[in-house]
Formats: sequence, C-alpha cells, structure tokens
Amino acid sequence: MLKAAAELMQKHIILDTDPGIDDSLAILLAAASPEIVVDGVVSVHGNVSTEQTTRNALAVLELAKAGHVPVYKGCDLPLVKESLLSPETHGDSGLGYAELPEPLNQPGAGHGSDYIIERIMSEPGEITLVCIGPLTNVALAIRQEPRIVENVKEAFIMGGAIQYPGNTTALAEFNTFVDPHAAHIVFHSGMPITLTPLDVTYQCVFTKDDLNRLLKINSPITKFIADSTRFYMEFHDEYQSIEGCVINDPMTLALTFMPEICDYQDLVVDVDLSTGVGLGNTFADFYNYEKKPKNMRVAMGVRPRLFMEMFLERMEKLAQGAFAQGSESNG
Amino acid sequence: MLKAAAELMQKHIILDTDPGIDDSLAILLAAASPEIVVDGVVSVHGNVSTEQTTRNALAVLELAKAGHVPVYKGCDLPLVKESLLSPETHGDSGLGYAELPEPLNQPGAGHGSDYIIERIMSEPGEITLVCIGPLTNVALAIRQEPRIVENVKEAFIMGGAIQYPGNTTALAEFNTFVDPHAAHIVFHSGMPITLTPLDVTYQCVFTKDDLNRLLKINSPITKFIADSTRFYMEFHDEYQSIEGCVINDPMTLALTFMPEICDYQDLVVDVDLSTGVGLGNTFADFYNYEKKPKNMRVAMGVRPRLFMEMFLERMEKLAQGAFAQGSESNG
Amino acid sequence: MLKAAAELMQKHIILDTDPGIDDSLAILLAAASPEIVVDGVVSVHGNVSTEQTTRNALAVLELAKAGHVPVYKGCDLPLVKESLLSPETHGDSGLGYAELPEPLNQPGAGHGSDYIIERIMSEPGEITLVCIGPLTNVALAIRQEPRIVENVKEAFIMGGAIQYPGNTTALAEFNTFVDPHAAHIVFHSGMPITLTPLDVTYQCVFTKDDLNRLLKINSPITKFIADSTRFYMEFHDEYQSIEGCVINDPMTLALTFMPEICDYQDLVVDVDLSTGVGLGNTFADFYNYEKKPKNMRVAMGVRPRLFMEMFLERMEKLAQGAFAQGSESNG
Amino acid sequence: MLKAAAELMQKHIILDTDPGIDDSLAILLAAASPEIVVDGVVSVHGNVSTEQTTRNALAVLELAKAGHVPVYKGCDLPLVKESLLSPETHGDSGLGYAELPEPLNQPGAGHGSDYIIERIMSEPGEITLVCIGPLTNVALAIRQEPRIVENVKEAFIMGGAIQYPGNTTALAEFNTFVDPHAAHIVFHSGMPITLTPLDVTYQCVFTKDDLNRLLKINSPITKFIADSTRFYMEFHDEYQSIEGCVINDPMTLALTFMPEICDYQDLVVDVDLSTGVGLGNTFADFYNYEKKPKNMRVAMGVRPRLFMEMFLERMEKLAQGAFAQGSESNG
Repeated sequence: MLKAAAELMQKHIILDTDPGIDDSLAILLAAASPEIVVDGVVSVHGNVSTEQTTRNALAVLELAKAGHVPVYKGCDLPLVKESLLSPETHGDSGLGYAELPEPLNQPGAGHGSDYIIERIMSEPGEITLVCIGPLTNVALAIRQEPRIVENVKEAFIMGGAIQYPGNTTALAEFNTFVDPHAAHIVFHSGMPITLTPLDVTYQCVFTKDDLNRLLKINSPITKFIADSTRFYMEFHDEYQSIEGCVINDPMTLALTFMPEICDYQDLVVDVDLSTGVGLGNTFADFYNYEKKPKNMRVAMGVRPRLFMEMFLERMEKLAQGAFAQGSESNG
Repeated sequence: MLKAAAELMQKHIILDTDPGIDDSLAILLAAASPEIVVDGVVSVHGNVSTEQTTRNALAVLELAKAGHVPVYKGCDLPLVKESLLSPETHGDSGLGYAELPEPLNQPGAGHGSDYIIERIMSEPGEITLVCIGPLTNVALAIRQEPRIVENVKEAFIMGGAIQYPGNTTALAEFNTFVDPHAAHIVFHSGMPITLTPLDVTYQCVFTKDDLNRLLKINSPITKFIADSTRFYMEFHDEYQSIEGCVINDPMTLALTFMPEICDYQDLVVDVDLSTGVGLGNTFADFYNYEKKPKNMRVAMGVRPRLFMEMFLERMEKLAQGAFAQGSESNG
Repeated sequence: MLKAAAELMQKHIILDTDPGIDDSLAILLAAASPEIVVDGVVSVHGNVSTEQTTRNALAVLELAKAGHVPVYKGCDLPLVKESLLSPETHGDSGLGYAELPEPLNQPGAGHGSDYIIERIMSEPGEITLVCIGPLTNVALAIRQEPRIVENVKEAFIMGGAIQYPGNTTALAEFNTFVDPHAAHIVFHSGMPITLTPLDVTYQCVFTKDDLNRLLKINSPITKFIADSTRFYMEFHDEYQSIEGCVINDPMTLALTFMPEICDYQDLVVDVDLSTGVGLGNTFADFYNYEKKPKNMRVAMGVRPRLFMEMFLERMEKLAQGAFAQGSESNG
Repeated sequence: MLKAAAELMQKHIILDTDPGIDDSLAILLAAASPEIVVDGVVSVHGNVSTEQTTRNALAVLELAKAGHVPVYKGCDLPLVKESLLSPETHGDSGLGYAELPEPLNQPGAGHGSDYIIERIMSEPGEITLVCIGPLTNVALAIRQEPRIVENVKEAFIMGGAIQYPGNTTALAEFNTFVDPHAAHIVFHSGMPITLTPLDVTYQCVFTKDDLNRLLKINSPITKFIADSTRFYMEFHDEYQSIEGCVINDPMTLALTFMPEICDYQDLVVDVDLSTGVGLGNTFADFYNYEKKPKNMRVAMGVRPRLFMEMFLERMEKLAQGAFAQGSESNG
C-alpha cells in the first residue's frame, strides 16, 4: 500500500488520559502505531492531579519524539464526588520510579473538553475518542454540546469491572469510581462505545520476562518502561499478589486498530450511583430485566499474548528509533 | 445623584433562568430596576425545555423593551438525572395562558456556560449571578473554569427548602430536585452564595387583589402578568390550596438591590444525593454536627409586603412605559 | 369518683424504654399518675446497653416504690444498623450523675417482644404502648405476630423530627436514627400511632428554676432528679446552647392521659432508609404528593407549661410519698 | 455400620423453606437421605405466601411419607421491604403444574422463629440450619436470641450471586432480594455459614433427560417432579434461555452430607442495602480492601453431575418406596 493511501485510512484519535504508568505506555504505543494518528491528547485528573498528568503527557510524547502532538488540559476535579488520586499505584509523579526531563512544550490554549467538542464537530464521523482515565472531560463535553454524541466516530473506554472484582473497592474499578457520575453520563449518552473492563485487562499481564526482553535494547524508551513499571509491579505484588503488572490502557488503545485481540458482547451496562457500598459498580444486565436497549460493546474475552507480542515488538521498534521520522510527519 | 454616578454603582448581573411564569416576572422586574444592569440572560432547562425557555427569555425581554439584552442558550439536560419539566405548573409554553409574539432577536453565539465564564473572568469581582432555575449551567462553568468561584462578585440562588416542605417531593424543591448534582457542585464550590429557599418565598404570595391593582393599567405588560399568573394561580389552588401564587423568582432578584426584604442566617447547607426518598433535599446542619464551614447565607425570614409593594410599583411604571427609554440605554 | 370506677377507666400501659435520664423521669411520672396503670416495662438498647437500661428500669421503679411492676428485657441491638449508644448525653450508667442502689428485683422471664405480643393478644383493644426508646422490640413483635397491630389500643411514640432539626444528625432524631428500620416497620404497620417529635419536645424545657422548686423537698426522688438532670443540662448547654434540658419522654407519656398538652395533625410520615445523609430522617409529606393514606397523628403544637406544671406537681407529690401506697396496690 | 451408630451420626436439621418447586425437591431429597434427620420444617414467605408455603411443606412431606416431621409457620413478610412473591416462576400454588392432596397434618403451635430458637438452645452445637428461602425467620431469631449464633452447629444457605448475574435484578438473587435486610443480619451474625450462590447452582441443570429417566418409574413422586418442574422449565426457557431447570435448593441441602459436590472459598461477603440499583447485591470483597474478617465459606466451584446422579438415584428409590419405612422411624 502506498503511504498516502495508508494515511487516508488512519484513524484520527483524541486520547483522553491521566498518565499514569499504563497511560504512558498507551501514549508510547500510539506513537509506535502507524494505523492511527493522534490529533491531540487531553489530560484529566485521576492517577495524579491534572497539573501532573498534563506535564506527564507532554513529557512522554517528547520521549516518543511525538512532541508535535498538542496536549490540552482538562478537568482537575470529578464532576460530583470529591477528588481521589492514586499515588500508591502510580507514585507521586504518576510515573513510578521513572524521571523524565521537564517538557519543552506547553499545553495548548483552551480547555480539554472544548477541544473535544471542536475537533468532533469540525470533522463529523471522523474522530475516535480513546478514554483511558476518568470520564470527566467527555461528560462535560456531552452536556455542553450534546451533538458530539452523533458526530464522534466511536469511543474506546478503559473502565469498569463487569463480573470481575473491582480494583478500588470490592465492586468498583478505579476510573469509574473516581468519577461515577461522568461514567453514567457517557454510558447513557448514545455514543457508540467499546468498553475494556478489568475482566479482560486483568488477563493481560506485562511480566518481568517481557520487561527483560525490552531491556535488551538500551534506550531512553526501554529505561522509562523499566523504571515506571517497576513501581507498578511492586504495587500489584503487594495488593493483589499478581506477578508483573496489568497494563489496562495500551490494550484499550490497541483495540482501535487490532480488534481481534478481544471478543465482544453487546450489553446493557449501568453505573451504580447509590451512596453506599455499590458506588461506582459497573454492571451488565445480562438477562435485560429492565428491557433497555444495549448501550455498548464490551470486551469480555481476550487473547493476551496476541496483544503483548504486538506491544513488545512496537516498543522495540520505538526504542530503536524506527518511528521517529514517521511520527514527526504525523498530524 | 447624577445619572452617570448611579450607573457606576449599578450591579452587573447575569440572570440564569428557565422562564417559566415567575422567571418572566423576574425578567420584568430586572428591566424595571435602575439599581441593576442585566449584562446577559442565560437560559436553562427546567420549567420547560431550553428551546422554549430561550424563546421565552427573548420574548419577555422584548415585551419589556429590553431586547438589547443578549440571551445565551444553556444546557438542555440535567447533569446526571433524567430530564424533568413542569408543564403542569407553567403550561406547555412555560408562560401559562400568556401568548407573546415570536421574538425578533436570536440567542447569542456560544454556550451559556461559556458566556458565564467569559463575563466573570473578564471583569473579576464585578459580576453578580442571579440563578432562578436549575443550576446546570453554573455547575458546568465551575467544573470547566474553577476560577470563576473566586472571581464572581456573588451569587443569588432561588432554590431549596430548608425547614419548609418541598414543592416537588415531600422534601425537595423543584430547581434542586431537577438537578441536585448541579446544586451540590455550586453549593460546595466556595462561591459567596445567598440562597432564597421556599421557607421565605412561600410567605410571599401574589394575590388576586395585587393582580387587580395592576390591571387598572391597560398595557401589554399587565395583560401578560394577568394571563401568565392566572394559570399559576390555578395550579397553586389545586395542588397546595394557596390563594394567589407564589412568585419565588422576582424576590430572589430583588435581594440584589433590596436586601432588607429578608433576614439571613449563615448556615452549612447540603443537598441529599442519595437515590431514595431524600433525593434533592436541601437541608441545613443547624447544630453543625459535621463541623463544616458555613457555605452560604440563607434567607430565613421575610417581609413579604415590603417586596410586594416595590414589585407592584415597578410593574406599574413598566406598564406605563417609564423604563422604556432607560432600559434601551442600558448595557 | 369512687376508686374502683376510676381504676376501671385507667389506661393499661406497656412502657418500652431505654432509661436514660428523661426515660427515668417518664417512669417516675407513670408511677405518679393515677390515670394510668403500667402493666409492664420493656427495656431496649439506646441511650445505654440493654443490660444497663434493664437495671435502670428496675432501680427507678424501686425508687418510685413501684417495684411490683415487672420489667422484661428486650433487644440489645438495632434491627439492621450497627449499635449506637449515647453515653455523652446520658452518662456511662445512663442516669447522669445519679447513683441508685442495685435493684432488688430481677427482670421477668421471657423476651420483651414476646411480652408485648402476649399482653396485647390476651387483652385485645385494652393495651396502650408507650415507646420512648428505639422501636426495635415493637418492630420485632409486629413481624412475629402481625395481629398485634389490630389488637393494640394505640401507640404513643417519642421520636422523629418533622420540620425541626435532628438531635443526632442534621436531619435525624436519636431514637429513629438508632434503629430507622424498626421505625419504618412500626410507622407503616397500620397501628394507631401518636407521634411526639422534637418539634414539640424541644419547646418543653425543664429549667433550673423548675429543678430548684423540686429541691425544696428533701427526698431521694428530688435528689435523683437533680443528679440525673444536672448531667443532661450540661450536655444541652455544650451541644445545643439550651439552658435547662429537654425532657422528651415524660411528655410523651403524659399525652396518654392529658392530650390537651398538644395540638395534632394527621399526616403521612416516613423514615428515610437511604444509605446517605438522610438516613433516619423522619419527614411528613404535607402536600401528600405520593397520595398515601395518613399513617399517624403527630403532635405539632404544644403548651409547654401546661405539661410542666403537671409534671412538677406530681414529682412533688411523689417526693412527699403520696403515691407510695397507691402504686403498690396498682396492677 | 450398624443402624444405631449411623443414626447417632445423622445431622439434625431444621429446614427453613418457601416451597416453591425446587424447595419441594429439597424436601424430597431430605426424606430420601439417610445421613440427615429433619427435626422440623419452618415455612417462610418467598416464592408464594407463607399460608401457601406452609401448606406445600405439609403436603410434600406427606407425599414423601414423612408426615411425622413437624412444620412451623414463620414470617409472612420481609423484615423491612415490601412483600415480593414470584408466581411467574413457581405458579400460583408454588408447585407449578403439580397438584397435591390437601395435607392431613396441621402446622405446629408457635412461630417458626421461636421453634428455631428453642431447638438450637435446647441442643447446643447439634442443630444444622438449612435455609433455602428468604432469611426472615432466622434474622428474627438472631435478634430475639443472639445466643443461637454460637449454639447452632452450622448454617447452609441458598442465596446470593457473587460473580454470577442475578436472577431477579441485574445484580440480585431472589432470596436475597426479597429480604436483603434479613440476609444482612444473618451474614454478619457470626454464625458459621456455607453459602450456595447462583455461581454454582446455575451450573446444575435438571434436564429433560434427567426427568425422563425418573419417569420410567410410575409413582406419585415422579409425577409430582414432572408436573412441578415442567412449569419451572418453561420459565427458565422463556426468561433465561436455559434448557431444563436450575434446582438451587436440593443441592444446598446435599452439601450437608456430600460436601465434595463443591469447592469452597472463605470470603468476606456483604449485601448491598442501598436504595438503588444495587439493592440486594451479594458480593465478595475478594481483595479484602475493607480488611474485615471472613464471614462465610462460599461454594464457588461445582461438580454438577456428581450431585445430579445422587439426586436422581435417591428420587428413584423414594419413588420405589425404599425410604417409606425408614423415614417414618426418623425423628
């Protein structure tokens, strides 16, 4: 295929993210994936503050030689709930033990949710949202400009735990628990959604063997992956007795161009907004007792190594500088 | 006082409103009140749809010869809850039995919540918010630009029922029940708030005698007041056995320039977001069991006739055309 | 009236109570009131543990020379919620600074709720329940023998705060908050209920002047009242800036023979069981939006001194030994 | 083994049940199982009213020639929630299309929850509770006599859906949804509990082939099983697209003498009492975020045919009259 034709088929993506260790790996994967072009990154609170996630997004893009991708700062607070960050999972900086140089670029002017509205409305049917943090920005955008729901191409969302236990409370996954009201708004908006819940991401463990394979290449990229995931692996070991670490976010991004990683079910999914033990529980009404229309496609089965091999290969290429030119000419 | 000096002292107001019968009377009162200048009107869902409240705001402003005041269209849905309108209280059009000509003006470009942000941030400390509908627009603005909280002069809010029964459920007042999550955001934002709950507005009844006094003047203004309030009076009679009608909204506006109408308490006020019988209940922690800082000034006592005499006089003047010139030179 | 005839007209009462300072005053008032005869006392958790309230009930009855009245031990835990006691209000013993001799009598055999069922079912239409603690025993009895609802003469219940602030949370009164599920069961059981909420009891303050009047008589009774209420007064002063103390419980008992103390409204009253800020809120649907049948008579107005004069006179007589003989021949 | 020795080792069981089709099969299995002796059956509301479940328990015992087993009538209403019956699953009579003769016996005197207390307290450490309906009776007994918790041998409970979807709402299983407050009381009582949730019972389908095998024997027993399960199978087909029917209750009873049917995990299990979409959700805190002690053993894996073969063999023997003598000499 000619390069021009390939570019015509690239998906145009807005990445809404709270980097975050696994968010950073998603940014690296985006930079290393020729099937997509990241039009912009929008930062949000979550793993750490929006101040920090904005800085991290800029720094990781620059690490990947994708500093041309604009970053827009989004919401710093959940819609209704009080703020909840997770330094115990991602470290105070959000990047574990990794240290990146202060970014050269500044965030773009304007609010992240305005950017989402402006991009979607200016290219109807062309923009794919990939949301790997709390959904505050997208919820705000939907309430301000409801027409984005019909004009977005599709939304890939990392969040929820359908039949799997929560990773934050017994019932709730982190992104949804942090802003359950935003998730409720987005889930019921009518947007075409593909959800990647813990049911599949927790099958997908980045192991020490995987890391050692990458470390055969000496590069700032592999050093960053090693330093950031080391912190993450310690967390998973301490709290959930998992060896290695679960990298929820890059898999969600990967589904935009490699859907065969997962098997899907069309389901009726809701978020519990009760002020009790169920707050933030993302559940499916499998038998559809409520007789509601199905509101999303949910990844319920996964081929973990299919994803992981692709991820490792692309990280190797990125570390070898293979994408530097290509990504500079993106956008 | 010279006119120029008086204008310097005028409060600059953004009126966030869902007209609505009593909202319309607040717009008329604003047009008839030299102490304030309405910079803009922002429409919101509530009594009827935002499509309709926007049209009504334009039409009532034109009726009051204040067509120069810009109207910005705001949110058409509550933040989290499903939509709830009240045609049984305000009629299908929102204006009871009144019929106004199709407005000549169009709403301004841009979203109502963006207008709120832009005005407040461009004149820090100068803008007074008067919110007499559900608080969706203001909540959205706060989450998108948190700095408006420190830069708004103050906010007067019609809403809640502290010790008084609700007018929508046993415990909840309409504006708060329609969007309790928005109220929760605004109440806890740190904005300097004066709340006008049902505890005082329900003391303030516009009677048939009051109406008859106005009807001695033959004018489109008095005809509008008669036709709109007749519907409202029928509602109050049927549901709450009140003769006349309660006009919550103009009194809230009046407090911006005539604070002596009410007595106030500084209180800790919260909104119940539980998914049960208490949803939307606005309550004060009088003994401050939770030891939280007081978050608003609440009108808990009222001199109803002090307000009503002022209101009637100004409606008479407006009907006699006294303000037509003045208001054209506003803004 | 001949003594025999008067006795025929006496109301037969089961007193369900968690003494508790004001509960103890209700027991003293019962012993001093010829219009009623206390068939039995049932203890419940609440102010202190059931172990302690049982002992206190026995001791106060013996203090009043009414040791012949049987006491049955009831539930020691709320139905569903976790236990909540209030030693900060009533002291560790439940009787403030008062110290009573170890009671000579033992509680009767059998559980308090079984006693309630047995008494009501054996004299249909004759037994009046006076409930001045959490409603756990009565709720249990209703679920085990639903027919008591039709066979009890009536129930007088101290509990709830309709429009008045709560005395435990911003919205909830202590008895209802401690066991809201039990209150819910009793309120919706169909039993003929007269409720005495904080709206009237908080108008009814036992002052230092009242106490000084009693102290003119030197007696174990007046000493007990002084020692117990001194603790209670300190609490009211510290937490609610009330001089004197609110004696909720004796007024509730008094309504069984002196209904003119209060004015009443028939209302639809419910208890909030949501797991949020409203838990235990007892509220009336004044406009009956839900169109439910009225489920109780609520004391909403009160003549405090009418009650207080009667109370003081009877305490004086009790202290002077006037009732010692009479009460021994009760039952 | 000699018969006398075998009897000494029999577990003494109280069966708390709301027959119900699968409850009836559990009663038949109990009558056919020499390892256990049913001391008494306690009826409860659930599938149909307590009036009906009491009659059904008597009738099914008589069908199994176990009319000597006493039946005690229990609660007819859930503790707090409004009544919910399920005639669509079990038919108006509770027994599907089966029709049994009017029972010859009457229920025993006294309330079911009193019977539970009396039996457990009179033989400490000897009585096994098998609860296959809503837990109202047991919850009531615990609140009235908390010591049964230490004196019961153990409790086997059919209820809940841990990771499996609910069979009544998206999240809740029927028994728990009908009386979640009772389940909450029992689950947190400290009683040694083995739970059989839908996670294992829904693996255990009684098929048409199974039924046909039984129908080779012509007997009132096999006719009853055929007529009752035919209704149940229609329900499962219509609502959940399951061929055959899930027989939750007999498997729960079977675990008392054949524990190897299931694999177990010790877990922290709670019931959601929020007034929202999660009401009645029975969930495990697998990672124990709340750091609470494990409160039950939960069957999470199952060997369905191991159970089913045993069940079919015993039903065959029962149909052939093999147990008639033996069960008459039980108790």
